[in-house]
Amino acid sequence: GHPVYRDMPTTIFEHMSARARETGAINLGQGFPEGPGPREVLQAAADALLTRSSQYPPMPGLIELRTAIADHYARHQQLDLNPQEVIVTSGATEAIAASLLALVKPGDEVLMLAPLYDAYLPLVERAGGMAKVVRLTPPDWRVTRDALEAAIGPRTRILLMNNPVNPAGIVLRDEELALLAELCVAHDLIAICDEVWEQTVYDGVPHRPLIGFPGMRGRTVKIGSAGKIFSVTGWKVGWMCAAPPIATLLARAHQFLTFTTPPNLQWAVAQGLGWPDDWLNDQRAAYQASRDRLTAGLEKAGYVVQPSAATWFLSIDLPASGIALDDVSFCNRIIDEAGVAAIPISAFYPQDPVTHLVRLCFAKTDAMLDQAIDRLAAFR
Amino acid sequence: GHPVYRDMPTTIFEHMSARARETGAINLGQGFPEGPGPREVLQAAADALLTRSSQYPPMPGLIELRTAIADHYARHQQLDLNPQEVIVTSGATEAIAASLLALVKPGDEVLMLAPLYDAYLPLVERAGGMAKVVRLTPPDWRVTRDALEAAIGPRTRILLMNNPVNPAGIVLRDEELALLAELCVAHDLIAICDEVWEQTVYDGVPHRPLIGFPGMRGRTVKIGSAGKIFSVTGWKVGWMCAAPPIATLLARAHQFLTFTTPPNLQWAVAQGLGWPDDWLNDQRAAYQASRDRLTAGLEKAGYVVQPSAATWFLSIDLPASGIALDDVSFCNRIIDEAGVAAIPISAFYPQDPVTHLVRLCFAKTDAMLDQAIDRLAAFR
Ligand SMILES: CSCCC(=O)C(=O)O
Ligand SMILES: CSCCC(=O)C(=O)O
Repeated sequence: GHPVYRDMPTTIFEHMSARARETGAINLGQGFPEGPGPREVLQAAADALLTRSSQYPPMPGLIELRTAIADHYARHQQLDLNPQEVIVTSGATEAIAASLLALVKPGDEVLMLAPLYDAYLPLVERAGGMAKVVRLTPPDWRVTRDALEAAIGPRTRILLMNNPVNPAGIVLRDEELALLAELCVAHDLIAICDEVWEQTVYDGVPHRPLIGFPGMRGRTVKIGSAGKIFSVTGWKVGWMCAAPPIATLLARAHQFLTFTTPPNLQWAVAQGLGWPDDWLNDQRAAYQASRDRLTAGLEKAGYVVQPSAATWFLSIDLPASGIALDDVSFCNRIIDEAGVAAIPISAFYPQDPVTHLVRLCFAKTDAMLDQAIDRLAAFR
Repeated sequence: GHPVYRDMPTTIFEHMSARARETGAINLGQGFPEGPGPREVLQAAADALLTRSSQYPPMPGLIELRTAIADHYARHQQLDLNPQEVIVTSGATEAIAASLLALVKPGDEVLMLAPLYDAYLPLVERAGGMAKVVRLTPPDWRVTRDALEAAIGPRTRILLMNNPVNPAGIVLRDEELALLAELCVAHDLIAICDEVWEQTVYDGVPHRPLIGFPGMRGRTVKIGSAGKIFSVTGWKVGWMCAAPPIATLLARAHQFLTFTTPPNLQWAVAQGLGWPDDWLNDQRAAYQASRDRLTAGLEKAGYVVQPSAATWFLSIDLPASGIALDDVSFCNRIIDEAGVAAIPISAFYPQDPVTHLVRLCFAKTDAMLDQAIDRLAAFR
């Protein structure tokens, strides 16, 4: 035997950002907004540093933040969560790790939908679980009963999923969520729902949390991210919400992973969640405008773009754009020759990758987007 | 089977702090300094929030911080670490978790010394390892060859240890460290050294890192904590240092646990590590004075105190103090009847606990210490 992580590469996001730092390429790879973050959010955290304790906050998080998260979900997603059901984590990645380490026992099978975030599989394996991956494919990324039922067996215990879906840029349809809920109940699965993109949905499409579907309230872990909601990805403030018996297990795992999360950042997030909805609406509108700007510019340059309904990402369809390269080759070419970093969609598939799509992050300044468009236009 | 964490309690530190918050007791339990933290450290972090990016820093940490940590160890411990051998984590707890998840394979045995920090055992078990615990006992807490050799077997792969030792308040003797190094080399063990208390050593006693002993440079993970060094326990900035082949594995585990750590806190720690040694010396002298104040006050009140050479903790010896209660009963009585929270030493033993010592944290204001002394004097 050898250590589980021995043969794993550095995550594609870090790898591409490091190459962008080295080459000076415009970084449309790793998902983070350009700029330091919204001024009022930063100021709230700076104020809390100077006026509040920097010692250990309570292990499951400041009660003020746990309450603000429960209130936020009551207002935005009509959920009825008790603050005691919310555990603050050092980012959504920690929430995913804590959930898997808390809930997966050696030999358990974990149902997942690909494309999937590249931390999922190593964490499932490190927890002793076995991945059962249902492969979704463009352009419609449809989740079907047949594919799910074929993947679920007697040892399946957990569904781990992301919605809205990175990198697909889609929101799962109501009937797909209803199907997933039905199967979780029928097969007694716990659903771990990575919903970090819940506030980056466009064109008036609502995000519907799986925990709100019939039978799911007591069997769902709902994961969220302040880094995504407030455009401060480096803060690493996330959370996981679940009914008490599950929440107790999650807290155990959390207390041995990071124990707790910087209190000044918790205070700032608690404050931000209390701001009027205008703030989030304006931010969402700005991201939507950036999406439209990048889409229009790329189309004008002759690229065919997969429509994006959510997340900070859209994809270029290489063959439809008349480009005879696979996604990895295209990404390697454009970072070196055009000075633009992107992410190949194949990185989100543990096997049988989709290889004709390249993901670009549009959460950037207009100037950066325009320059990237110019460079990609010249590359053609 | 059931989840590994199912039958585990909330950590004793959180439990006692929660009871202290509820009852208003003076909290000498969980180890954290009173007050918000040193002003210049807080200011550096607040400044960085407003002038630096709050987006993802590089996954292994800011190179400026990694360099500052390597420089710090060159100056203070005569170590020759390359910044690439330093990985920044979201606190030392994450560093311990990442090290164990990276290095322990199912079936591996992990050698540990009790008393031990209560996260060790659950993490070893969650990684699939089996704990082999060597029990140290007061008053001299001596590590012997016989005890170590009896615990090491053919499946032993890792030594996980803490030095200076919480809660014993001791620094391991040079001959004990040399013995541990000798056995690590002889049995091809990797040493995971939790050295978070390295800067809280008193009376001029030096801290000697195990990684500096013959044969250990390539087989040691050295873990440190900015929260302890700068008296800001809530910041959760830690690190792990190891030679490249091990560091690569550690980075894999880290990227799937928290991915990275808030950049403004990293900048502040990098700055603080560059301050003149006076700063740390003054802080150490202040903690030493607090230790002496609590010791003297308790002795005047008729308590017998185990001497403390390091950490933020000292212990009361109950039978020597003429108190016919075990440590758990005494802690329960004093939190309710005297309004003082403490930690029973038995919480640091997975089996065969030492039950006659009670740990008190002296990293508090003089006023708090004096009031706690008065209350404990009246309790007798
Ligand atoms: C933790 S780096 C990955 C960030 C992200 O969500 C993405 O780029 O998909
Ligand atoms: C993470 S809470 C524990 C803090 C500590 O080191 C102690 O009190 O021993």
